[in-house]
Amino acid sequence: MTIKRIAVLTSGGDAPGMNAAIRAVVRSATSNGIEVVGVRRGFQGLHEGDMSLLGPRDVANTIQRGGTILLTARSRTWRSPEGRALGAEHLRKWHVDGLVVIGGDGSFHGAHYLMEEHGIPVIGLPGTIDNDLYGTDHTIGYFTAVETALDAVDKLRDTGASHERIFVIEVMGRHAGHIALDVAIAGGAEEVFIPEDEKPVADIVHVIQESLRKGKASSIVIVAEGYPGGAMGVAKAIEDGTGLETRVSILGHIQRGGTPVSSDRILASRLGEAAVQAFMDGISGVMVGRTNGEISYTPLQDTWEKRKDVNRDLYRCAKLLSV
Amino acid sequence: MTIKRIAVLTSGGDAPGMNAAIRAVVRSATSNGIEVVGVRRGFQGLHEGDMSLLGPRDVANTIQRGGTILLTARSRTWRSPEGRALGAEHLRKWHVDGLVVIGGDGSFHGAHYLMEEHGIPVIGLPGTIDNDLYGTDHTIGYFTAVETALDAVDKLRDTGASHERIFVIEVMGRHAGHIALDVAIAGGAEEVFIPEDEKPVADIVHVIQESLRKGKASSIVIVAEGYPGGAMGVAKAIEDGTGLETRVSILGHIQRGGTPVSSDRILASRLGEAAVQAFMDGISGVMVGRTNGEISYTPLQDTWEKRKDVNRDLYRCAKLLSV
Amino acid sequence: MTIKRIAVLTSGGDAPGMNAAIRAVVRSATSNGIEVVGVRRGFQGLHEGDMSLLGPRDVANTIQRGGTILLTARSRTWRSPEGRALGAEHLRKWHVDGLVVIGGDGSFHGAHYLMEEHGIPVIGLPGTIDNDLYGTDHTIGYFTAVETALDAVDKLRDTGASHERIFVIEVMGRHAGHIALDVAIAGGAEEVFIPEDEKPVADIVHVIQESLRKGKASSIVIVAEGYPGGAMGVAKAIEDGTGLETRVSILGHIQRGGTPVSSDRILASRLGEAAVQAFMDGISGVMVGRTNGEISYTPLQDTWEKRKDVNRDLYRCAKLLSV
Amino acid sequence: MTIKRIAVLTSGGDAPGMNAAIRAVVRSATSNGIEVVGVRRGFQGLHEGDMSLLGPRDVANTIQRGGTILLTARSRTWRSPEGRALGAEHLRKWHVDGLVVIGGDGSFHGAHYLMEEHGIPVIGLPGTIDNDLYGTDHTIGYFTAVETALDAVDKLRDTGASHERIFVIEVMGRHAGHIALDVAIAGGAEEVFIPEDEKPVADIVHVIQESLRKGKASSIVIVAEGYPGGAMGVAKAIEDGTGLETRVSILGHIQRGGTPVSSDRILASRLGEAAVQAFMDGISGVMVGRTNGEISYTPLQDTWEKRKDVNRDLYRCAKLLSV
Repeated sequence: MTIKRIAVLTSGGDAPGMNAAIRAVVRSATSNGIEVVGVRRGFQGLHEGDMSLLGPRDVANTIQRGGTILLTARSRTWRSPEGRALGAEHLRKWHVDGLVVIGGDGSFHGAHYLMEEHGIPVIGLPGTIDNDLYGTDHTIGYFTAVETALDAVDKLRDTGASHERIFVIEVMGRHAGHIALDVAIAGGAEEVFIPEDEKPVADIVHVIQESLRKGKASSIVIVAEGYPGGAMGVAKAIEDGTGLETRVSILGHIQRGGTPVSSDRILASRLGEAAVQAFMDGISGVMVGRTNGEISYTPLQDTWEKRKDVNRDLYRCAKLLSV
Repeated sequence: MTIKRIAVLTSGGDAPGMNAAIRAVVRSATSNGIEVVGVRRGFQGLHEGDMSLLGPRDVANTIQRGGTILLTARSRTWRSPEGRALGAEHLRKWHVDGLVVIGGDGSFHGAHYLMEEHGIPVIGLPGTIDNDLYGTDHTIGYFTAVETALDAVDKLRDTGASHERIFVIEVMGRHAGHIALDVAIAGGAEEVFIPEDEKPVADIVHVIQESLRKGKASSIVIVAEGYPGGAMGVAKAIEDGTGLETRVSILGHIQRGGTPVSSDRILASRLGEAAVQAFMDGISGVMVGRTNGEISYTPLQDTWEKRKDVNRDLYRCAKLLSV
Repeated sequence: MTIKRIAVLTSGGDAPGMNAAIRAVVRSATSNGIEVVGVRRGFQGLHEGDMSLLGPRDVANTIQRGGTILLTARSRTWRSPEGRALGAEHLRKWHVDGLVVIGGDGSFHGAHYLMEEHGIPVIGLPGTIDNDLYGTDHTIGYFTAVETALDAVDKLRDTGASHERIFVIEVMGRHAGHIALDVAIAGGAEEVFIPEDEKPVADIVHVIQESLRKGKASSIVIVAEGYPGGAMGVAKAIEDGTGLETRVSILGHIQRGGTPVSSDRILASRLGEAAVQAFMDGISGVMVGRTNGEISYTPLQDTWEKRKDVNRDLYRCAKLLSV
Repeated sequence: MTIKRIAVLTSGGDAPGMNAAIRAVVRSATSNGIEVVGVRRGFQGLHEGDMSLLGPRDVANTIQRGGTILLTARSRTWRSPEGRALGAEHLRKWHVDGLVVIGGDGSFHGAHYLMEEHGIPVIGLPGTIDNDLYGTDHTIGYFTAVETALDAVDKLRDTGASHERIFVIEVMGRHAGHIALDVAIAGGAEEVFIPEDEKPVADIVHVIQESLRKGKASSIVIVAEGYPGGAMGVAKAIEDGTGLETRVSILGHIQRGGTPVSSDRILASRLGEAAVQAFMDGISGVMVGRTNGEISYTPLQDTWEKRKDVNRDLYRCAKLLSV
């Protein structure tokens, strides 16, 4: 089948670089003589038929913008077969030959059902700050989220160095510790707590005491939001165990915004182009990712069923360098 | 009396630009043939005699650094006359003719007692992110803290625009709303809650509903930490009153760190120089500030006893522009 | 006369914060029941009638954006009386009661003629990074330009400290040295060359030699673009006089862009509101500025005929602190 | 042989992340019971014996700093066998079992000779913003340099969008186009000129004319410093061919400084640890790099003799997305 028109939507939590991905889809398609329909507000907008044609100029000056010009929304109606049927109908009415879904695993579920139930070819692009999708080394938005959290750690380091304090910082990542681990290494943290390791929170007491003994002016502890108890739990353990005061910082949604850093823009550009190429090559039902620097295709189901572990070498390294 | 040697310390919560102030004191003094003694860890270090000579090269490459190279600490011993007597003795032993204290009102209290009880000439420099000192238009660190909080608001704005959400952001400022007000205007917030105005939190419900009616994609609400109930209280009022979900972000100590922005460095440089000049002119017992672009002197006691109101024009303006 | 509708345009070189000013004009007007017409591409667009109504939602999410949503252009046709007559006709056709011109002295000339020749009430808002307008302490965009240049100086400082090098950085400012002076103080520069002081460039040789003698690892020299010979001339003088290698950096238009810092947004918000208020109060033919923290009105002609000197105290201070 | 003590130096142009690499070497070594000697000012300092022991606390609070705490210098004496013999003697006198050299190909030459002539085991770590070393996917400092240049492009984009202008930006990279290519993709540039492609500069005229025809408000052209003629040559070709005005921006050494971004800190941390491990495993004479996410070893000579091409997929993608 020759592809003449594709649609694109962003879904779930937004991530910096989503606009770069939309732009890449639109411009790659245009370069190949394919039209693009932009669907607003994710699956909710697809359900409601909130869509229009997108040309190369419509995505001009968007590559550096956080958020998503197509908006996203959590859709309840999409969970019902009737809701999805209506979405499929809109796509057919617009003569769409394939749909690019930029989002995380929840979004890929939605895409998967659309393909299964209605035969609409779909391709997923990994758009989430959490980096928790199997089948790609990194997700679009991840690098920026790490940078935002790291910037906060650097600022705390200033004030920590002045005051001899213990800072506990909670970073995003849902059920995964990727952001926490990268921030811990890059931020020179004394300790990091991630859901992938079940070490007891009490260990931290010993770490802090060692730090003080070694003459460290302050301690920085990174906690992934998915670690049981979160930053508050870890802070309490420290205060109970050492009698020292701690300061908790919870960055929250700030990590989802901001101008995307170069790595996210480049990844988004490369994947957006590859998604269009995949449709042209007759490929669908997959997430297009980047693995070891090369484009890779992973069946949508694998992206959420298979587990992507944190980098164990980095985890070990983080420990070693906090000496 | 000819001034031959002065001492300088930083005290209380640290603020970006403190290093620029220390540098200015050291270099202005040197330019005028005066030696400088740096006291580490504030009044606690003064009490313990933790001090040494500081030359122009010792403050090289510090102007851009957050925190304070002299460190700060909260001192309990300083609260007792005996503690202060010991500090005064150290200063005399070092042949110090005057002491520059960079900090907030708590630090100025400490300086005031030192002068009252032991006749040590002191000069205060306003070093606090809170901008809550009477006698200066701005305090050193204030501009950077506003910028840090604004950066967070900008990032939330990205994700807010994508998601149709309500964000409630708590910013620092102790008992004052200066930071909150500036961030609200510069961040284009829908509403701001400051300690200086007792408007009922329930008002926000109407504001949010109006926002939605006008088609605003998201709402940003700034809350000063000194507003009763803080961000959590305001968020609860919104959720109870509108049934809409909110996201709370509490920036915390991040606002105390970071590379100082130009305005803080320039203010610090100017005030540091003026402090040395003041001693040379026989002036002491005052805070050196900047009022309407000119150096001003305010008796230390006035800095905490007189009230510095928020800019009412700005407050009115914030309301007008959120239409 | 009751004001029912005003127009707004941006003209000349763009400056960060222009969007915040447009937004403030639109929203203040709306709050007061006044309609606003946005003119695109400055006087060129006015000449061509390229204009449309702007409502509060049209300026949503623009306060943090660099550049100007109304675009600017240099207009040749505006220099002729016929060109201006056509512009005046467009304004009358649109029933505009007053025009807000955001720009620098060239733009104010254009506005001045429009009022003189056609009786259209105009108000100028100082929108230029150069801070070279008499009648306001600061211009919109100035703070951001200083911050951008300072950020570059900080980066050079890193590499300078590693390498024992001399960096010569040229910053913008047209015929004025405001940006250069602020960057020099905040950047801890060894020397600054501004058009307002005619000191011989050869002086720098002595300064550099002194720096080396004192053990400074590197030297940073700031040159205003308006200083005769610019950075290249100063660099040559250093190389000829000391035999040392220099590195020249010319930032250029980068200084005109970027997210506006808080001080520019607040100034723009305040002045935008005051411009609308001025029209309502029957005031026109003036630039609305901020002087000593208060709104001030200056006849347009004074803004370019009277001279605004650099802050001589700062200039002296810069010298003192580079010891 | 059991490794008891190693030395580390930074050499050549400095790069953000060098401090993170030094820190990782020091702390990994300490964790493994190995002492570390820090050599100041690269091979020049090694020649002069300017070295001392470095402990874990000496590298505290350095991970976020640009530049290098060990300083670098270009050494003339090192080019002579006598100079190198003296350096080797210093290392033996300090009982050093191996030397880690952080730098680019020039530095690796110096290390190579030291090993060849004096049998000192050496390991190279890729520390250069240019990313021009064979044997590693990325070099330490590269990511930050791209980010710095991209930040400048984003700012030009603001002002370009307002003014309908053509910006030509020259970025670093020596004889390679890696930085230019990444900046071009991430910055959404219309065209990029790199040394690796010999396309005629006249092509740009057609590109610019097409851009205007398509309604693009402005054009951004990235030129690698290694492209013949540089930014000035390309700008002249555009002006000659189109009659349009261009603005040239030459970032220069700014790209070598700044706080390292997370990717550079993580890479540096990982490689620093791996260098120590390599010595412990009896490996030397190689550069330790990261290839496809894994640690890789490349004979020092290969790093400069074999050619590392730019990513051709990205190069093609850059073209496709500028439509």
